[in-house]
Amino acid sequence: MRDLSGTTGLLSLNTATLGPKRTLKDAVEGCLRHGIEGISPWRDKIAEIGLTEAERMIRRSGLTVTGVCRGGMFPAADAEGRRLALEDNRRAIDEAAALGAACLVLVVGGLPAGSKDLKGARRQVEDGLAASLDYARSAGVSLAIEPLHPMYAADRACVNTLGQALDLCDRLGSGIGVAVDVYHVWWDPELDGQIARAGRQDRLLAYHVCDWMVPTADLLLDRGMMGDGVIDLPGIRRSMEEAGYAGLCEVEIFSANNWWPKSIDEILAVMVERGKLL
Amino acid sequence: MRDLSGTTGLLSLNTATLGPKRTLKDAVEGCLRHGIEGISPWRDKIAEIGLTEAERMIRRSGLTVTGVCRGGMFPAADAEGRRLALEDNRRAIDEAAALGAACLVLVVGGLPAGSKDLKGARRQVEDGLAASLDYARSAGVSLAIEPLHPMYAADRACVNTLGQALDLCDRLGSGIGVAVDVYHVWWDPELDGQIARAGRQDRLLAYHVCDWMVPTADLLLDRGMMGDGVIDLPGIRRSMEEAGYAGLCEVEIFSANNWWPKSIDEILAVMVERGKLL
Repeated sequence: MRDLSGTTGLLSLNTATLGPKRTLKDAVEGCLRHGIEGISPWRDKIAEIGLTEAERMIRRSGLTVTGVCRGGMFPAADAEGRRLALEDNRRAIDEAAALGAACLVLVVGGLPAGSKDLKGARRQVEDGLAASLDYARSAGVSLAIEPLHPMYAADRACVNTLGQALDLCDRLGSGIGVAVDVYHVWWDPELDGQIARAGRQDRLLAYHVCDWMVPTADLLLDRGMMGDGVIDLPGIRRSMEEAGYAGLCEVEIFSANNWWPKSIDEILAVMVERGKLL
Repeated sequence: MRDLSGTTGLLSLNTATLGPKRTLKDAVEGCLRHGIEGISPWRDKIAEIGLTEAERMIRRSGLTVTGVCRGGMFPAADAEGRRLALEDNRRAIDEAAALGAACLVLVVGGLPAGSKDLKGARRQVEDGLAASLDYARSAGVSLAIEPLHPMYAADRACVNTLGQALDLCDRLGSGIGVAVDVYHVWWDPELDGQIARAGRQDRLLAYHVCDWMVPTADLLLDRGMMGDGVIDLPGIRRSMEEAGYAGLCEVEIFSANNWWPKSIDEILAVMVERGKLL
C-alpha cells in the first residue's frame, strides 16, 4: 500500500456503492476515470470474474485495495454451520491476501436462526475470530472487525460499538483491528475516545464513509451520500487523523432507490465532489 | 403507587400499544377487563379528554400510573424554541403530578432542524434537564430519561445508551433516573452492568417491554409483541429484578400494520398471555 500519510480526503470506492448490478470491471474503470485512489471489492464481485482475473485487473489499475468485503458471519445453530463459516473465512483471507488488501473486513454475524441468546452469539464470534486469526497472520492479512449499527444486532453483527470491538481485539492480540464506518458509529457518545484508543493500539485499519438520512426509509438500503445527511463527517475525520489514521476514505453507500439507479459516472462524480467535504 | 415488591410480570398498558385511534377511556376499561394492573398514558390521550377528567377516570379505576409519556424534546434551533420546550416540560410535569405517575418519561430530543452538531444537541439536552429538575422535584415528579435506540439519535433522542443516561444522572443529582425499554437497549453489550448501576443508584424508574422483530420493516412502527422477536426478555427482567426493580412491566408496542389494526380485546388478551413470559 502506498504511504498516504499527510494526505486527507483521498477516496476509495467500495463496490457496493455502484449497486449489485455493476461489475468489478465497471468499478475499476470508474475509479480510473474519476481519479479515485482506491477500491474495496465485495467478494461476490470477485467471484463473478474469478480471483485470478480480479487480481490482474486491480494490479494493472494501480488502485490501492483498502479492504475486501467481507468475512465474518461466525455464529451458527450447530457445529457444522460454525465449521463452514470458518472455512469460508479462510477463503476470504486467501482472497484478501491475493489482492494485497489492507484488511479483510469482518461483519461478524448475529443470532443464529431461532436463537435469542445474544451473549452466546457474541461468544461464538469471539471463538470464530480466535480460530481464524492464526491463518490470517500467516497470510499477512489484517482482520478488521466492523462494529455494525445496533439495529443490525440480531441479523448481521452482534458487535455493535467500537468499544466492544476493541475489547475483543484486546483479548485476541495482534493482527486484528477495526473498520470504522461512520454509518454504524456516528451516534456513539464514546466515539472520539474509542477512535483514539484504536489509534494508540494501531488498530485503525479502515475508514468507511456515507451519511445518515433523516428520515431513513429502510434499515438496510437507504444510506446517503456524504453531505446529504446529518453526520458530522469533518469532525469524525479529524478524530481519525488525530488518532493517526492516514489511509483512504472508503465510500460505501447502500441506496437501492436513490443512488444505485443512477449512472456510474454520476455516482462517482458526486462522490468525488463530496469527498472534498471530508 | 402500591408496593409491588415480590411480584413479577405484572403488567402496565402504555396507551400507544392500542394505536393512535383508541381513547384513554378505551385503555382504562380494557385494563380493568383484562386484569392489567397499571397504565401509562401518552399526553395526547390525556389532552383529548382534559387532565381533570383523565385524573378522575384513572383514580376511579385504581390503576397504577407507571408513567406519563412524554416530556423531553429539549434541543431547538434557537433560544425561543428551547424556552418553549421548557414550558412544555413544566406542563408535562404538572400532568404527571396530577395523575400520581411513578415518573415522567423523557424522550430527550435529537438534532435541531438543519444541525449536524450531535454534541451540541447533547449539551442542550443536559441544559434542558437541569432547567426542569427543580420544578419536577417541587412537584414530586421523578424524571425518567429514556435512552432511545441509536437509530433515533438524529430525530428523536440523542441519549442512546443506559450508560450515557446514567452519566447525565450522575451530574444532575436526585429526582432523575431512567426508563429502561428493552426495544432500545437489548443490543447493548454493557446492559447488565448499567442496569445494576442504575439499581445501586435507585434510578430504575420504569421498565418497558415489547420485542425486536427480524426483519424489522419500519424503524418506528414495527415493534413486536413479547415473544415474537429475538429479545431475551426473561434475561433482562432478571437483571432488572436483581438490580432491585419491583415495579410493573409496561407494554409499549408501536405496530401500525400488525397490532394496531386488531381489536382492543385481542391486543390485551395476547399481551396478558405473553406477559407470563416475562
